[in-house]
Amino acid sequence: MSITSPKGFQAAATTAGIKPSGAPDMALVVNTGRQRTAAAVFTRNKVCAAPVTLSKEAIAGGGLDAVVYNSGNANACTGQQGYRDAQEMQGIVAEGLGVDKHNVAVCSTGLIGEPLPMPLVREGAQALLGGLGAYGSEAARAIMTTDTVPKEVLVEGPGFLLGGMGKGVGMMAPSLATMLVCLTTDAQASAEALDTALRRATASTFDVLDIDGSTSTNDTVILLASGESGVEPTQEALDAAVLQACRSLARAMQADAEGVTKRVSITVTGAHSEEEALAAARTIGRDNLVKCAMFGSDPNWGRVIAAVGMAPVSMEPARISVRFNGHTVCADSTAVPGAREVDLSGSDIAVEVDLGTGQPGTATVYTTDLSHAYVEINSAYTT
Amino acid sequence: MSITSPKGFQAAATTAGIKPSGAPDMALVVNTGRQRTAAAVFTRNKVCAAPVTLSKEAIAGGGLDAVVYNSGNANACTGQQGYRDAQEMQGIVAEGLGVDKHNVAVCSTGLIGEPLPMPLVREGAQALLGGLGAYGSEAARAIMTTDTVPKEVLVEGPGFLLGGMGKGVGMMAPSLATMLVCLTTDAQASAEALDTALRRATASTFDVLDIDGSTSTNDTVILLASGESGVEPTQEALDAAVLQACRSLARAMQADAEGVTKRVSITVTGAHSEEEALAAARTIGRDNLVKCAMFGSDPNWGRVIAAVGMAPVSMEPARISVRFNGHTVCADSTAVPGAREVDLSGSDIAVEVDLGTGQPGTATVYTTDLSHAYVEINSAYTT
Repeated sequence: MSITSPKGFQAAATTAGIKPSGAPDMALVVNTGRQRTAAAVFTRNKVCAAPVTLSKEAIAGGGLDAVVYNSGNANACTGQQGYRDAQEMQGIVAEGLGVDKHNVAVCSTGLIGEPLPMPLVREGAQALLGGLGAYGSEAARAIMTTDTVPKEVLVEGPGFLLGGMGKGVGMMAPSLATMLVCLTTDAQASAEALDTALRRATASTFDVLDIDGSTSTNDTVILLASGESGVEPTQEALDAAVLQACRSLARAMQADAEGVTKRVSITVTGAHSEEEALAAARTIGRDNLVKCAMFGSDPNWGRVIAAVGMAPVSMEPARISVRFNGHTVCADSTAVPGAREVDLSGSDIAVEVDLGTGQPGTATVYTTDLSHAYVEINSAYTT
Repeated sequence: MSITSPKGFQAAATTAGIKPSGAPDMALVVNTGRQRTAAAVFTRNKVCAAPVTLSKEAIAGGGLDAVVYNSGNANACTGQQGYRDAQEMQGIVAEGLGVDKHNVAVCSTGLIGEPLPMPLVREGAQALLGGLGAYGSEAARAIMTTDTVPKEVLVEGPGFLLGGMGKGVGMMAPSLATMLVCLTTDAQASAEALDTALRRATASTFDVLDIDGSTSTNDTVILLASGESGVEPTQEALDAAVLQACRSLARAMQADAEGVTKRVSITVTGAHSEEEALAAARTIGRDNLVKCAMFGSDPNWGRVIAAVGMAPVSMEPARISVRFNGHTVCADSTAVPGAREVDLSGSDIAVEVDLGTGQPGTATVYTTDLSHAYVEINSAYTT
């Protein structure tokens, strides 16, 4: 199960030497199919990396022949030289494959603000071009940074396959991590159908995976279609497969988030709209006091209600209820007997908050606890 | 130097037994002056505690004769019973002092969601009424929760004195802490003049003390004037004294914030407006990755620039500059040689970010690092 499981895709991975650790750090994914449509979504950070700028230009045409990846260096905040370096990566791959360079996307992940070591990158790119094959799982390893495990998925749709690889820990570590995802399918689909499916899927998966509210300069999710199955699925079938793959990769990222000891879902109901429910859920999910309580398995609902009171949404302040793992701990904004005895010692915690308006708006975000390991990893990384 | 240094004020403190630790946990401040004007600002959290609701009603008349405090229990999320309990505290004090109950404010701080232990509170209130004197410093100790030191200030204005006490660690621990401040002055001043001075001062002090983005259900800042100096200062002189006191207390709170090892100021310049500068500074100051880097004394400017790129304000993404402790580490959104060698090992770190728009908007927020101790304190509190 990998991005080379669907028909019409090849991949390669290599160790170019960009990472000091000596782990694999470059990958290439090539669409060899009869149809090479594609769609992509990118970071919303106003400060975006050179490869993001370049890949946005590439995807504008609705098709991609290849995506080249490097880890260990984000090529972000590297000025004009960074853009030229990303162009050179694109050009080497395009020339090697004999395709239009405007159909090659570039994705980088790693430290911000350091120039790419181009001699290593050039050599690595040539190694990738000479090593293409069914190496989807090797590619998934080569894009890892602080990930502890590679993240792959394979979904079987009606008559077609959809594979995926991802790296990163949500939007958790913009100085080095980044979320990168590549999805491949042998379905026949127009660029518009792919774009629709991808935007629908990311809205309820990667977009609500909110580890610490941080958004990387490099986040990129790309979907490539080869058409080699000969099957053109309905939009619904395509949507379902892309959603299933994104959901699986998002769960894997949440479980592998830096320093995580708990996977926490925050569901808000009783909001005036889905947007307001989402805003309230994000406010709770980003609250460090709530996250520390989760780390301590502490059913401290007072922190949840204090957090939700800061959300810029409509609520009935005296009618809020809170449930932990299905147990009501707070009703009408006051304690329920036994609230402090609810067991949160397991690794999954479900928090449900009803805003008391009686309206149907609801949304869920996925986050984690705030642990000693998070502080350790993130205070000691570059030094 | 305490709240009883200005003429016309008395205070008392006692151990009612609300705190399991046996530390002092109730205080009373009484204005005995010829003029008893007052002003107050309260939490903006939509979920506010019963004593906040009651004190808002009390201050509406523009005067206060007394403020009664308890620590160890926030009387928040306690429903109708909580409001009746706050009213009872107010009533006991009013009756004991022989004043209108509508001129008595109530402030509580501590755990959310637990009913006030009223037998203890009643006995404590009587003890306060029988123990009034020059006990401002004792009162400052009795309102502490996780504070490690009491926080007091005395400012000498032209012909008048202004004293203050505060507790809390910014908006850092809404489940138990809360920011409470009481300022006393023997200046003659109308309620309007006091309100103007207090709002001006809090806007640039407590309002920009942003330890973790959390806002308590109980935050209350009260300013009482006795008129006993016989001096009516100009608005400028009053503003200056209130600002100086608030600045001093805010700095003390920042230094005593839970788990803090670094005091961090974030200044944003080159924004379209002061509001946009403030929004950008808050976004940086709340970013856990930036805060972890500060804990690690790591000049990781990439995290600062990634954080600012998420701020909902206008900027020139390729023209951003970052300075740490006066050293430019990033110019035009790219690294400056030597950037990673800047020494951040001291306990104060100044971060300056210019958004590159050439516009004059500027603002500063005061925050702290994110340390192991923060996680420890906040994951193990109620369990």
